Amino acid sequence: MDRVAVIGASMTQFGQRDAWIRELLAEAGEACLADAGVAPDDVEHLYVSNMASGEFEGQTGVPNALAHDLGAIPAYTQRVDQTSSSGGAGIYAAWQSVASGASDMTLLVGGEKMTHRTTAEATDVIASLTHPAEYKHGVTLPSFAGLTARRYLHEYDAPRESLAKVAVKNHKNGVDNPHAQFQKEVSLETVMDSPVIADPLRLYDFCPITDGSAALMLCPESVAAEYTDNYAVISGIGGATDTHVVHEREDPTVMGGVVDSGKEAYEMAGIGPDDLDVAELHDMFTILEFLQMEGLGIAEQGEAWKAIEDGRTEKTGDLPVNTSGGLKSKGHPLGASGVAQGYEIYKQVIGDAGARQVDADIGLACNVGGFGNCVITTIMEAGQ
Amino acid sequence: MDRVAVIGASMTQFGQRDAWIRELLAEAGEACLADAGVAPDDVEHLYVSNMASGEFEGQTGVPNALAHDLGAIPAYTQRVDQTSSSGGAGIYAAWQSVASGASDMTLLVGGEKMTHRTTAEATDVIASLTHPAEYKHGVTLPSFAGLTARRYLHEYDAPRESLAKVAVKNHKNGVDNPHAQFQKEVSLETVMDSPVIADPLRLYDFCPITDGSAALMLCPESVAAEYTDNYAVISGIGGATDTHVVHEREDPTVMGGVVDSGKEAYEMAGIGPDDLDVAELHDMFTILEFLQMEGLGIAEQGEAWKAIEDGRTEKTGDLPVNTSGGLKSKGHPLGASGVAQGYEIYKQVIGDAGARQVDADIGLACNVGGFGNCVITTIMEAGQ
Repeated sequence: MDRVAVIGASMTQFGQRDAWIRELLAEAGEACLADAGVAPDDVEHLYVSNMASGEFEGQTGVPNALAHDLGAIPAYTQRVDQTSSSGGAGIYAAWQSVASGASDMTLLVGGEKMTHRTTAEATDVIASLTHPAEYKHGVTLPSFAGLTARRYLHEYDAPRESLAKVAVKNHKNGVDNPHAQFQKEVSLETVMDSPVIADPLRLYDFCPITDGSAALMLCPESVAAEYTDNYAVISGIGGATDTHVVHEREDPTVMGGVVDSGKEAYEMAGIGPDDLDVAELHDMFTILEFLQMEGLGIAEQGEAWKAIEDGRTEKTGDLPVNTSGGLKSKGHPLGASGVAQGYEIYKQVIGDAGARQVDADIGLACNVGGFGNCVITTIMEAGQ
Repeated sequence: MDRVAVIGASMTQFGQRDAWIRELLAEAGEACLADAGVAPDDVEHLYVSNMASGEFEGQTGVPNALAHDLGAIPAYTQRVDQTSSSGGAGIYAAWQSVASGASDMTLLVGGEKMTHRTTAEATDVIASLTHPAEYKHGVTLPSFAGLTARRYLHEYDAPRESLAKVAVKNHKNGVDNPHAQFQKEVSLETVMDSPVIADPLRLYDFCPITDGSAALMLCPESVAAEYTDNYAVISGIGGATDTHVVHEREDPTVMGGVVDSGKEAYEMAGIGPDDLDVAELHDMFTILEFLQMEGLGIAEQGEAWKAIEDGRTEKTGDLPVNTSGGLKSKGHPLGASGVAQGYEIYKQVIGDAGARQVDADIGLACNVGGFGNCVITTIMEAGQ
């Protein structure tokens, strides 16, 4: 079967944007069409990754609006929602549309408009994805992160500073990302002295609330050649759920969805973690970077903190993680985040990542929905 | 390529249900697993068609909840939203998951819980899918239906009664559907004397607001044989958009999305409208049944009303339309409706439609999102 190629990508300025969801989606969509050199009426399928435009903005039907705004009618269009991993789910949906033969040119646009709502309102919308048995008792995603971090530090005898070092690293990487919400370094002391949010986690262990959008253009590899000789292929992809009730998990330091989706993606690509050159992990909370490194076999169980301490995941290390700055520095506009992870990996493997470029032929993106309720792992390789 | 088979289906009682969205989805999901004889842990992908559980109920993340409730973890799961055609979009997503090779067993469950909200609230949520240039001026979907019906009657010199006869026919068919919200006949006089809603359309020209769910089980045809020797195949499927701003359409009596998605589906199946034995059309408003019959080539442009007058679409006619009772009598729980259309066509082509059974080897379902903003057309044929 023809492999699925990525022939173009875009990412808008992440941060507090004076634009509504329709405008954000159109901005990324137009930029991606231009980047790929694809005419709007050549788009056959158009997927929109978005969690909650209805709840945040009172606007639904945004895929139809986007088809209209891009001039892509009569392209088939649909919204993909998998909560905070809607972007990764969008990559999977777009991949399926091409791999099934349904579409020879699929545009995926992910976006979310959130900053016009208060942090409490936004947290409430996000918390509605969790099990009522937990969220009605006030256990939101940040609470899970705090509880899990405490367990992890205790279980594996890890220093609190190792978590803070994730934030320091990702902020340092974000300086080179012109689209990142925070393009500034933070010191270990700043992180360690920031206000407690969910003990032991502090303000700088959390990603911000963000507006933004990103896009990818997918087509069969045989079609890619008509547009460019420098493209990526999605060589592996998989998705998996874990218990919806988080407290039912046997070991709270293991995310089953990360393990299972990673296995699927590695198997399809015919590679293992040692073959990776770069990875984007879903660092909505610093502790999640550890859990994904371990779940994906990048570090042994309980040893991701040592990799951070040893600088292995720095840009100069064995396996650079979150060269984009991650969700931590780049921001986390729910539906856009997984697509923006794909943007970074695509740019890295085609050698177009500018100041963020590392030596990379194979990259992985892991997008986590809820608190690991559903996870999508994608592997891209340089084409040809 | 292996064709995609449907090996099981379910539909819950449609109407005013004392159950929340999670319960409705689980009810249809469990019934479909039982009908197909598939164990929960054999499900590889699980798609949920739902427009607005967040807006209606403050609950998101329902696909993860459903994977949990069915015992289907670690199956990959995702929500499919295409407004009122979310169900048809779900069939397309489930088809793609199997046809792409990503899943060998895909469960699709569609559902919506709406009746706990007032009609005004529900209409407001639905109206949020239209273009702000229209809905901010009070033009909701029922308004579009009234304007279009007036134009149609004028343009094609059709009698007002022909629209009413759609309601009469579909209510008559619904008597034989134990899952229908209204299992009762209505007379032509009842429809013609009911209160005006959007002139010339009256109360009985509109579908009700409904709670309910439905499900389908899809797998490669080669796998189907392990489960049953009586299955259907999806021989054709296509989706297409029309202008998001409805008043920009050149001819308001033509829905481009119906025409384009129908063409795609016919071409893939290698058949034409004359080959159909049965059809489920999206009669959210009576006028829509005419527009789809004409857009799909079941009747000539401007002549669908004659087919109704001649009884051609009755159960005893050349091409029975809406043997299930349609949205009109069955009800229209947004995310469920397209899946329930698939349920009816599946039951008809495998010869298991009970009192509703007609002589059918090939059937078509047309699911309309918004006011034709996006349309999905699916063709099923008896397997083997």
